[in-house]
Amino acid sequence: MQVLIINGPNLNLLGVREPDVYGSQSFDSHLEVLKQNYPQLDLVYFQSNSEGALIDCIHQYGFDVQGIVINAGAYTHSSVALADALAAVPAPAVEVHLSNVFKRENFRHHSFLSPVVKGVVGGFGLYSYNLALDALINDAD
Amino acid sequence: MQVLIINGPNLNLLGVREPDVYGSQSFDSHLEVLKQNYPQLDLVYFQSNSEGALIDCIHQYGFDVQGIVINAGAYTHSSVALADALAAVPAPAVEVHLSNVFKRENFRHHSFLSPVVKGVVGGFGLYSYNLALDALINDAD
Amino acid sequence: MQVLIINGPNLNLLGVREPDVYGSQSFDSHLEVLKQNYPQLDLVYFQSNSEGALIDCIHQYGFDVQGIVINAGAYTHSSVALADALAAVPAPAVEVHLSNVFKRENFRHHSFLSPVVKGVVGGFGLYSYNLALDALINDAD
Amino acid sequence: MQVLIINGPNLNLLGVREPDVYGSQSFDSHLEVLKQNYPQLDLVYFQSNSEGALIDCIHQYGFDVQGIVINAGAYTHSSVALADALAAVPAPAVEVHLSNVFKRENFRHHSFLSPVVKGVVGGFGLYSYNLALDALINDAD
Amino acid sequence: MQVLIINGPNLNLLGVREPDVYGSQSFDSHLEVLKQNYPQLDLVYFQSNSEGALIDCIHQYGFDVQGIVINAGAYTHSSVALADALAAVPAPAVEVHLSNVFKRENFRHHSFLSPVVKGVVGGFGLYSYNLALDALINDAD
Amino acid sequence: MQVLIINGPNLNLLGVREPDVYGSQSFDSHLEVLKQNYPQLDLVYFQSNSEGALIDCIHQYGFDVQGIVINAGAYTHSSVALADALAAVPAPAVEVHLSNVFKRENFRHHSFLSPVVKGVVGGFGLYSYNLALDALINDAD
Amino acid sequence: MQVLIINGPNLNLLGVREPDVYGSQSFDSHLEVLKQNYPQLDLVYFQSNSEGALIDCIHQYGFDVQGIVINAGAYTHSSVALADALAAVPAPAVEVHLSNVFKRENFRHHSFLSPVVKGVVGGFGLYSYNLALDALINDAD
Amino acid sequence: MQVLIINGPNLNLLGVREPDVYGSQSFDSHLEVLKQNYPQLDLVYFQSNSEGALIDCIHQYGFDVQGIVINAGAYTHSSVALADALAAVPAPAVEVHLSNVFKRENFRHHSFLSPVVKGVVGGFGLYSYNLALDALINDAD
Amino acid sequence: MQVLIINGPNLNLLGVREPDVYGSQSFDSHLEVLKQNYPQLDLVYFQSNSEGALIDCIHQYGFDVQGIVINAGAYTHSSVALADALAAVPAPAVEVHLSNVFKRENFRHHSFLSPVVKGVVGGFGLYSYNLALDALINDAD
Amino acid sequence: MQVLIINGPNLNLLGVREPDVYGSQSFDSHLEVLKQNYPQLDLVYFQSNSEGALIDCIHQYGFDVQGIVINAGAYTHSSVALADALAAVPAPAVEVHLSNVFKRENFRHHSFLSPVVKGVVGGFGLYSYNLALDALINDAD
Amino acid sequence: MQVLIINGPNLNLLGVREPDVYGSQSFDSHLEVLKQNYPQLDLVYFQSNSEGALIDCIHQYGFDVQGIVINAGAYTHSSVALADALAAVPAPAVEVHLSNVFKRENFRHHSFLSPVVKGVVGGFGLYSYNLALDALINDAD
Amino acid sequence: MQVLIINGPNLNLLGVREPDVYGSQSFDSHLEVLKQNYPQLDLVYFQSNSEGALIDCIHQYGFDVQGIVINAGAYTHSSVALADALAAVPAPAVEVHLSNVFKRENFRHHSFLSPVVKGVVGGFGLYSYNLALDALINDAD
Repeated sequence: MQVLIINGPNLNLLGVREPDVYGSQSFDSHLEVLKQNYPQLDLVYFQSNSEGALIDCIHQYGFDVQGIVINAGAYTHSSVALADALAAVPAPAVEVHLSNVFKRENFRHHSFLSPVVKGVVGGFGLYSYNLALDALINDAD
Repeated sequence: MQVLIINGPNLNLLGVREPDVYGSQSFDSHLEVLKQNYPQLDLVYFQSNSEGALIDCIHQYGFDVQGIVINAGAYTHSSVALADALAAVPAPAVEVHLSNVFKRENFRHHSFLSPVVKGVVGGFGLYSYNLALDALINDAD
Repeated sequence: MQVLIINGPNLNLLGVREPDVYGSQSFDSHLEVLKQNYPQLDLVYFQSNSEGALIDCIHQYGFDVQGIVINAGAYTHSSVALADALAAVPAPAVEVHLSNVFKRENFRHHSFLSPVVKGVVGGFGLYSYNLALDALINDAD
Repeated sequence: MQVLIINGPNLNLLGVREPDVYGSQSFDSHLEVLKQNYPQLDLVYFQSNSEGALIDCIHQYGFDVQGIVINAGAYTHSSVALADALAAVPAPAVEVHLSNVFKRENFRHHSFLSPVVKGVVGGFGLYSYNLALDALINDAD
Repeated sequence: MQVLIINGPNLNLLGVREPDVYGSQSFDSHLEVLKQNYPQLDLVYFQSNSEGALIDCIHQYGFDVQGIVINAGAYTHSSVALADALAAVPAPAVEVHLSNVFKRENFRHHSFLSPVVKGVVGGFGLYSYNLALDALINDAD
Repeated sequence: MQVLIINGPNLNLLGVREPDVYGSQSFDSHLEVLKQNYPQLDLVYFQSNSEGALIDCIHQYGFDVQGIVINAGAYTHSSVALADALAAVPAPAVEVHLSNVFKRENFRHHSFLSPVVKGVVGGFGLYSYNLALDALINDAD
Repeated sequence: MQVLIINGPNLNLLGVREPDVYGSQSFDSHLEVLKQNYPQLDLVYFQSNSEGALIDCIHQYGFDVQGIVINAGAYTHSSVALADALAAVPAPAVEVHLSNVFKRENFRHHSFLSPVVKGVVGGFGLYSYNLALDALINDAD
Repeated sequence: MQVLIINGPNLNLLGVREPDVYGSQSFDSHLEVLKQNYPQLDLVYFQSNSEGALIDCIHQYGFDVQGIVINAGAYTHSSVALADALAAVPAPAVEVHLSNVFKRENFRHHSFLSPVVKGVVGGFGLYSYNLALDALINDAD
Repeated sequence: MQVLIINGPNLNLLGVREPDVYGSQSFDSHLEVLKQNYPQLDLVYFQSNSEGALIDCIHQYGFDVQGIVINAGAYTHSSVALADALAAVPAPAVEVHLSNVFKRENFRHHSFLSPVVKGVVGGFGLYSYNLALDALINDAD
Repeated sequence: MQVLIINGPNLNLLGVREPDVYGSQSFDSHLEVLKQNYPQLDLVYFQSNSEGALIDCIHQYGFDVQGIVINAGAYTHSSVALADALAAVPAPAVEVHLSNVFKRENFRHHSFLSPVVKGVVGGFGLYSYNLALDALINDAD
Repeated sequence: MQVLIINGPNLNLLGVREPDVYGSQSFDSHLEVLKQNYPQLDLVYFQSNSEGALIDCIHQYGFDVQGIVINAGAYTHSSVALADALAAVPAPAVEVHLSNVFKRENFRHHSFLSPVVKGVVGGFGLYSYNLALDALINDAD
Repeated sequence: MQVLIINGPNLNLLGVREPDVYGSQSFDSHLEVLKQNYPQLDLVYFQSNSEGALIDCIHQYGFDVQGIVINAGAYTHSSVALADALAAVPAPAVEVHLSNVFKRENFRHHSFLSPVVKGVVGGFGLYSYNLALDALINDAD
């Protein structure tokens, strides 16, 4: 079972940016944890700060993988195009967030992605990705 | 580790109401599954259609349990009092939804609970409860 | 043909509260009139000031009766949960109001129930209940 | 007792337009049914697609008849002038709708007529007119 | 100097409708007063309850008269087409109202006509028409 | 192939009104051009400033013609009834505008007709009608 | 008959500010015209750029004069206090505007004063004051 | 003079919940203070987390007591039914709040109760109840 | 203990304006009552219709007095500057209103002052000032 | 005459994505049709999922080509930058849409591009591009 | 080159109010710095808490000075009259703010002044005034 | 002291696009001016039409430079991601605009960047960049 994990803008800074706040763990290191914890999954990982590159990636993999885990960062709240891309491919997607976006500014309470994904997981830090993978595995069973 | 699972209005009808839509599985039977899957947890379960009874329950258990999993049903969208109750007790809470509420009517897109819980899981049917328990366990580790 | 008549909050005060405004007729006495006028109907009556109790009642009878006449009073304008309960049971429902709510405060112009009932009757005082029963009878024919 | 029944725009197409949806019964044939069912009433019927003609008709009859049953169709949602006409004449009016407008587009949820009529009946198909006549008769008693 | 006076829907009822409120003076009798008070003016008068007929009238006279006094009644608040008609003809127009519309319902506070007329006069009963004529005469000087 | 072309309020003034702005060409003369350019089409033309007359016309022809080209002018932005009429007849309709309405006042940005027509063409002056006819012809092929 | 004429902020600049736009006539010179045209009136004139001073003036004269003509300038759109002052005194007031405020920015379309004055006159330049005086005289007759 | 004091949802936790924030004083102990400070009053106290129970209580006492002091907690912001109950009984009510709700989230700035009570007191902690009793006593003098 | 009492626009008219509505008691006479009832307080009183003068007064006294009682009248609803002045001085302030503003027009439901004062008292007529003083005294204890 | 055709995000999937819905024709094959049907035009085609690349393309060609046909896909509803790019270049642009966006979600009803293009064509599938080219040709004549 | 510097309400408290937050520097002392740094400028300084006095000052100097630097404090967000005054005089104005108003409450995000000034500078403390003077000097070059 | 200057979409066209409006000076030539005027600064310049490339650039330099001057063009109004990038890096940023955006369309009045930058400078053409640099230098002193 192949799963695409997509991270959007500014998530490349995890572990570097304000480590006392976000922790000193980069996503790359958590990706290693995920690969160890889910040996049955073939995980493809992509990060970009470009809306267009994220769409390209969804097009490239979305017809072949069995699931998508997407943390679109700030594009969650502004990108109709990204939502259209997820809707266009057959792979089921799970939207994840590190933080509980509903505790933050109002403009982060709306997601263009939510209506086109299978489900949403948010607020559990990097463990949110684990839960999203669990959800995809359970769904495929 | 004791965890309180709370279900709000109309969730007592699961398995009875429109079984071709919601499945023929009652929450009670899924509760048995949860108890089997999470033998390390002491699960307390409460369901009520009354906003006041749900608040009473949060008061009764929220100072003692190590976590709360709450599917407040329609009260999610209308009850400030329930949110205040969750905020008043020390136990961390996870908000769950069976369906992806963002695919439904606009008034279901807003949750009074989200800003006071640790995180949100929704859209994965009864498996959403499993994910919420996983999140609480991971958080307690 | 069994029909459930449900009255919501504050409607227990009919005949007691401001009799020069609302008349000196209690709903109980009108219920007697309804029973006499509709001898072919088995009328079940329930009133409560509790949202949860009203939902419980809909669950208890809504799978068996052939129709529901509901005046949810103020819960009309605030209760998503009551609307969900009506939507969950097979019995067709008719929403009634004593007064013409559209002549009153703006927050009374919106009803959460209207989108899930068969039809709406309002503005004709206690006679609104008669019209609702007629509608259910005609619908069942 | 003379009652004016007014139908607004597009209601002349009943029975012709999409008969599998709206039924094959024209309003004219239902008018015959009403005349038979309410022999004590002198029913005057008027239909027009013109807002001005509808107002003219209300002016012509509204000072003489004992009641008005009005289905203003789409003008319900856009015509202040029609509401002013109803408010200007002494005859009590009942607003009727074939469908439950609250299940349809948002712009159909607001009625300019509702605040100036005695009451509202909607959602019961052609039988809505019967209920409106019953309400007027009961009111006149 | 020729001036067109246009009255919109329901204004034909002046003097007939609720004489204790609106007075027992019809507009026709006030028109006689205007003709006497303004002998230098050639007054053309038109009233209709039909939006289309009012537009037709503006087209017919608006290229020839030296001024238009228009009380569009309820169409003031709903008719873009009437505003477009006034904007299309060269004659300057004055919008009049019998009552002070800003003391009434919110939907009467907005006028589609105001942005396309020279000025607005309202709140002075039938004397508002005199003021509007004075304004046109002064403007033409 | 018979096509109905409908023009709404104030469009009868084309060529007369502000010729330096709208050009000196009347719609009648452009209709001649259309008849020459589309000899294969049987063009029926109707213009009225009355919302009701436009609806009557749609009812009269809409069951028989193979297409409707409609420039509803200001009624585009205010008439639910006109939209209902178009939705009630089987002929596919194309909404046209002379100007680019999105460059004008905000209230012209919303069209009640758009959701019930096949497509929209606007901003190309009288040539917009040609494009609309082309679209209907292509659609019928 | 004594009448108070009040001008609000920036109206002291009439005749000085952009004379090609607002004309080269100061309000003082127009006041002379008014005194000549209305010899039967005792005109009291006050201008201030201070909201408080305008309120003081209304308090000082509003219990004694037979009418108030007020052009509150920009305070029209922001001052609840000025409206309260007008409502507190027995003298009837007429709101005037030099320009047609409905052709200007949106925030100028709302007046706090309009609901508490007898009527409104606007768009006729300095002649608006004459019309307001006429209205007060006619009202007093 | 008998006065009913009503506390709504979560107020039973006073003194228990976050004592460093809300103080270690329970409402019961403050009730003792009130009884001592106001020996001339017969104080009836009721607390519930259930909207329906609060309404029942208002019905039970509101026709007999000389005043009601109500802190409806979160129901202040969501309950039309509670407001209707207060409006239905003759006893004058005073709305109290421990905190200054206008310093908190936006949804706490609106109260359904305020328009139906005599007055509002908020922001003074438990002393707000004393002020409310003073107001009722002064009002009864 | 020195307390500043500030009254805003139009409150100088108390006792003069509509005595049958607002009573025949001026604030000056109530100030005498307050001085007698609170002999332990050094009351400084200031009233002005000018927003600027009110701010000046807050600046002059707000660093020295132990409390401020402010009824800002209509400036409550429009003045950010007054709120900033209260926030800038160390004296705690209590906002008072004679009437229950929540029963009046919508624009009176919002207060710029409320978020910067200690608490709010409204609806008890002149006695509201007594309650505000009590609150300040209790707070200082 | 050189014309630039620009397709925005996800339009590269035409013919691949849900062929039973969008048809099995790719845009490339329709481009061949366009080249055959418009031999007099030099068509330049560009597609990208990146907002920045689309802007770059408009900059590169927009000063030289005689027209632009743009289907910006989802960027239509979110991109101010794309609209600014179109406004910055001299070539006239036509906005096209395959579907009738006004039948879809509300957020698709607003276009940032519409106010800066010559005209809009939408709802006619791939034939919309033909109509846009016709409009540009006619405009250039 | 003469420049008018205007400070609005509460800015007289700079250096006195919360010195740990706003610094212990009064504006007067910064004015001395400005006079030293800009010896080529004739700086006129005015501060008032009164909207009217600020307008008077703009009228007095605005026709003669070569530039205006204005920090209107809270009036920035509420005063149409101040904006009208700035628009009425020929001197170019620069709006300054000590703090970054966009980090503060929502009602501080809107400025009535911004649309009528040359430019805006904010967020740089007292140095904002230096930047504003630089902008005026550069503009005059 | 190293400073990053970032220009967003369409700003590469300065000097080329409508030179009579925006002037014939390209940003490159102004960059030369800046380098000459600020010899003590090490200026790094980057322009892109791609939101992602702008974010990449902020990531690359934002941890090292002592300040950022950013004119995000149209992305100012639509990009949450760009604001997040600025918030993630330690360098203080100043938002600049060539024009006074508050004189333009409403959608340009909101900036996602403003809440995360130190300050804002706008309306002074290319000189805005000089002021921004001055502000950064002053801030670093």
